[in-house]
Parts: sequence; structure tokens; C-alpha cells
Amino acid sequence: MTAVKIDTSDRTGRILISIDTMGGDSGPDAVVAGLSKSVRKNPDIGFILHGPENKLRPLVERRRCLNGRVEYSDVSDVVTMDDRPSHVMRNGKGTSMWSTLESVRLGKAAVAVSCGNTGALMALSMIRLRKLPGVNRPAIAVLWPSRNPQGFNVMLDVGADVRADAKDLLQFALMGASYARNGLDLSRPRIGLLNVGTEEHKGRPELKQAHELVSAFAEGAAFDFVGFVEGSDIPGDAVDVIVTDGFTGNVALKTGEGTASLIGDLLREAFRFSPLSRIASILAITSLQRLRKRIDPRRVNGGVLLGLNGTVVKSHGSTDPTGISAAVELASQLARSGFSGKVSAQVASASSVAQDSQLTGQGPLAG
Amino acid sequence: MTAVKIDTSDRTGRILISIDTMGGDSGPDAVVAGLSKSVRKNPDIGFILHGPENKLRPLVERRRCLNGRVEYSDVSDVVTMDDRPSHVMRNGKGTSMWSTLESVRLGKAAVAVSCGNTGALMALSMIRLRKLPGVNRPAIAVLWPSRNPQGFNVMLDVGADVRADAKDLLQFALMGASYARNGLDLSRPRIGLLNVGTEEHKGRPELKQAHELVSAFAEGAAFDFVGFVEGSDIPGDAVDVIVTDGFTGNVALKTGEGTASLIGDLLREAFRFSPLSRIASILAITSLQRLRKRIDPRRVNGGVLLGLNGTVVKSHGSTDPTGISAAVELASQLARSGFSGKVSAQVASASSVAQDSQLTGQGPLAG
Repeated sequence: MTAVKIDTSDRTGRILISIDTMGGDSGPDAVVAGLSKSVRKNPDIGFILHGPENKLRPLVERRRCLNGRVEYSDVSDVVTMDDRPSHVMRNGKGTSMWSTLESVRLGKAAVAVSCGNTGALMALSMIRLRKLPGVNRPAIAVLWPSRNPQGFNVMLDVGADVRADAKDLLQFALMGASYARNGLDLSRPRIGLLNVGTEEHKGRPELKQAHELVSAFAEGAAFDFVGFVEGSDIPGDAVDVIVTDGFTGNVALKTGEGTASLIGDLLREAFRFSPLSRIASILAITSLQRLRKRIDPRRVNGGVLLGLNGTVVKSHGSTDPTGISAAVELASQLARSGFSGKVSAQVASASSVAQDSQLTGQGPLAG
Repeated sequence: MTAVKIDTSDRTGRILISIDTMGGDSGPDAVVAGLSKSVRKNPDIGFILHGPENKLRPLVERRRCLNGRVEYSDVSDVVTMDDRPSHVMRNGKGTSMWSTLESVRLGKAAVAVSCGNTGALMALSMIRLRKLPGVNRPAIAVLWPSRNPQGFNVMLDVGADVRADAKDLLQFALMGASYARNGLDLSRPRIGLLNVGTEEHKGRPELKQAHELVSAFAEGAAFDFVGFVEGSDIPGDAVDVIVTDGFTGNVALKTGEGTASLIGDLLREAFRFSPLSRIASILAITSLQRLRKRIDPRRVNGGVLLGLNGTVVKSHGSTDPTGISAAVELASQLARSGFSGKVSAQVASASSVAQDSQLTGQGPLAG
């Protein structure tokens, strides 16, 4: 399958990534520091920076590795974390977020990255990039530390919309499969539907319908459908992609993050308890750092907005340079794999198949 | 407020707890070992054991501390983990689970404890104990390790039913508040409604309705309503009781458990990595045990079925003597506080208040 190709590289053949430098909690300083971190690992990327050029230029010029890799798009307005999506949709023109998406819409950049307000980013992406033909609800997919060989599972939706019917869940399965192929290099991802038990009679009516739908598409779309999975499978090794509605996914994501953070704090507390435990903690420091690295949320910092004409990576609002760098790396990997074209072809074929009510053999839908 | 008093103590004045010895994954051995553990800490309790007496008697006679504390209810049938609730409702008579609930229904025991099939236990409890007047959907509440001074939060529903409308969520709030008062000794618990964000405009329609309802009842029912909370607040310190539907609560519970278990395994792995890290792990062992104890799921082993005429504690199916002992301890604490009567009074007053559409001042509903 060939992806829809748009030339989103600059004159030197670099992949261009559109960066919203404003709207995050840590400001453009952290963003520019993150970009400089990411180019060291990815020499084939360049950036279009959206934000106030007079603030950005001095920050960029201090980092030699960014020399000659940056274009500016001078905009002064910012979408704040408190802005309502509906307000931003009406008044967002002139913000760095709007401008960041515009570079992708016009084919100047391959992928957009923003650490701003998630609701506003989704809303603006919907009206500027528009939904892929055949997609009813776009979704946000995240990577989740797991017991799988690849170290991560994909979960979607984690909060683009609080609702999802059976057809939406099918599209999430198709988009998630495509993301797992291109983001995690899995040729035949295993897909599971999140439920309160693995037995087929359990759960809500839309889940039973979705079970039938996804099951019927699995062969044609070249993924394995493992059926219903439970919350414990999200960090497990039974599946690669967990499909759920944005309400449940969002609660699960934040519960997992909160639990990990509580355990981290309790671990620190345990090691501060007595003089002996403090000595042990010094000896254990490399082991603890190894663990921290493995579950560091910054390392998988990047929710991907799926189901749009263009790829948008949402970085955590409160992230630091390490987090920004991880989000940019994910963006460049997706750009290199031609992900945007593949996911659109996957969904388009599936929806035409669905319309014809015929299932094709394995192969044509894989992408 | 005075609780409805039934004499559920034996001739020596002990609190009697009705124990389903069968149906758990670890068998009656583990159950009897757990009982013997729990009586050492709680000299004021006795047991009615339901199961095959010829198997149970030798196990009990081996434990001197159980001497004179045990009555037998000889039944041979067992509800298995795979039995469908609907099947058990029709054919469950003669099982240890049925008989365990019967002791509570007839007022012979104060609280029932079972580590059998959750769905079957809920279904049998509904038909034998029946729902409290005014309760539409009973709920299962669990304790969750948190940053709060009491070390735990209450969350409900974690899986009695996959649905809950606004009125159900209000009842969960009332029952959860009562549980926090009697199970965690909090005189004025803080209640939160689980959502995808804390802003009032977020979430599903039934959540916005529930927000209004719970808010209106907070003063009269002597709890503080903190509004919407997120997944990260479940292990946090912003609330004491998290109210949600059984689908979301079940997914959150299992996600949290799965995340904790993954981190535990990764921690062990990190400490096995090199000779130095193995030495560190030996020195750190007491610190790590301290942590493990703090988040050990067996220590908070006991979901409580709320909204029924009688208290039923559901222990984890795969638990060991430590877990059984924790479940029995919770049961005896609830029995001592007269919890069953209090929660029923709480719900009854609330539903009469709701019928009159009048809110009373603080006090009369607290229980």
C-alpha cells in the first residue's frame, strides 16, 4: 500500500515538524531545550516554530545544534490551559496552536507537536485538519508501559470524546492497529476491547456489538483480535492495543499514572526511614534509576490524535525537555513511516468494506 | 441515630461472622488458617462455617485458638468461579454461599464473608438479603491505598453493575459516606464524583445531573462534596470516597492493581540486574518490605456489598490466610459499629428527603 505523499521536507531533505512553542506549563525555554535534545538523536529532522519570534530566536541561537534547522512562524496569541475548546474554535486564529496545525494542513510540515490544552488541540484539529473520510470520532492514543517485549502497549481513546459506540470502537481498533504497526513496529498487533471481564456475556451492550464488529474485521485488517480484556491487561502482555471509549480510557490512564506516582513516593519514603535504609538507597541508586527510566512517563510522552487528515502529537502540558524530546522523536518516527497516509488508507478501505458488507482477505487493509 | 439491632452474638457475647469456606481458589485450608490469624487480633469474634463439616472439622481442630469459637453449617455444594450468576440464582440452594448469606438473613450472624465468585455473590445477596428500601442498584466498595492520613480511600461501585444513573450515583455517595464513617472512622468524609476533568462542564450528562444531586444532599448528609475528581485522585489525598459506575470503577481498580504489580516486578528485576544491585537489594530489604506492606492488596482485602439488608464482605478469590484475616477483620469492625443499620437508615432518610423534595439541616442523616 502506498501512502498519500506530501513533500514535507525542507531543501536539505529533512523531515519538518511543526512545533507549538507556547501553551505548555513550562514555556518556550523547555520546548527549545527539548528540540535540541531530540536533534542529537535524529539528525534528519528540522522544525517550524510557532510563537513570538523575538522570544524564540534568542533561545534557539543559544543552541548550536539547532543552527540552520529552524524556521519561524511569528504569532503572538496563546491558547491557555483554562481556555474552553468552544472559545478557542471561535477565537483561536492567531494563536501558536492554530498556526502549528496550519503548517500540517498546508503540507509544509509532516507532523504537529503541541504541549497545550488537549481539548482545544482536539477541537482545532477537527476544524482545521478535518476528520478522515469514514471517521466519526477521532481518538487520542497513548503508549503505556507494559510487560510486552516492545515494552509498551497502545491504548485509545484516552479522552478525545467521552462517548463511543460500537462503530467508533471498530475504528479505534483499526487506527490503533495502524499506530502499533508504525509506532511500535508490530506487523500483526493483538487487539483487545476493554471490559469488566473476559467472558463474552459481560459488559455494556455497545461492547458486545463492538466485539462482533471487530472480530469480523480482524482477518481483513491483519490484526489478531483477542476479545475482551480487563484493566489489569493494560500494563500486561496479553494484547498490544487496548480499545475503549475516551471516558474509561482517560480514567484508566490517570489511575495508572496516579498509582505509579504514589508508589514512587512511598518508595522514596521507605528509603528515608532509617539511617540503614538511607545507606541502602545509596547502594540501590542505579537499580532505582533503571526502574524509574523504565516507567518514566516522560519517555512515552506523546498522545497521538488519530482519525484526522494529518498527524498531531500531544505532549504532556507540564513536561520538561526530556518529555518534549520524546514527543518530537515519536513525531519524527511517525513522519518517516508515512503513518498519516497509512492510517487514512486503513480507515478508508475498512469503511468501504463496511459499506459493501463484504470482508476482503488478509492484506489489502494492512497499513 | 440508633442502628436496627439484631442479636448476632453467641452465648458468650461474641460477634458472629458467617464464613463461606468454599469457592475460593485456595480452598478451605487457607480460609481456616485466615480465621485463626484473625482471632488472635480480635478476641471478641466467633464464626459460623459453611461447607462440608467432615472436611472443615479436622482443619479447625488443628488450630487451638479456634477452640469453642466455631459452629458448623454442613453443606456440600459449591459455587464455582465459572458459574454464571443466573445459573446460581436458580440452582444455588444447597451451596455454601447460599447458606452463608442465610445466616445473615436470619439474624444469626452479623456479617457474611465469602471469597467466591463475585457476580454470583451479588446475585444471591440480592435475592436472599434483598435491596434496602430506596436502593435501586447495590454497589461494591473497596479500600484503595492513598495519600490520605487514613492511608486509604473508598471507591464504589467497582463492579456490582456496569450501569449507574444520576440517582444511583447519589445513593453510592450516601452509602460510601456511611462506609467511610464506619470503616475508616472519618466523621465528615469528602466525596468526589469520578470524571475526566474537574471542571463542571466536563463529562457525561448523568455526571452533571449527579453533581447537582450530590451537591444538594451534602449538607444534610454530613459529608463534604468536592465535586468532580479524576483518576489520579483515586490514590490521592483530595477525597475520601470516589463515586463512579461499576464499569469505570472496575476498570480503574484492575488498572491500578495491574500497574502496582508491574512496578513490583520491575523493581525486583532492577535489583537482580547486577551483583552490586543484588547486594543493595539485601541492604534495602526492610525498606522494600515496608513499601510492600503499605501497598499490599491483601491488607485491604475486602470489597463490601452495599445497599442490602445485611453486610457482605467479598474477599479476593485468590487470596491467602493474610487476605482472609484482613477480610474478617473488616467484617468484624463493620459488625461492631452497627454499620448495617446505619447505612440503611442513611439511605432511608435520604430517599424520604428526596421524596419530600426538602433538604434537612446537618445531622439527622449522618450515620
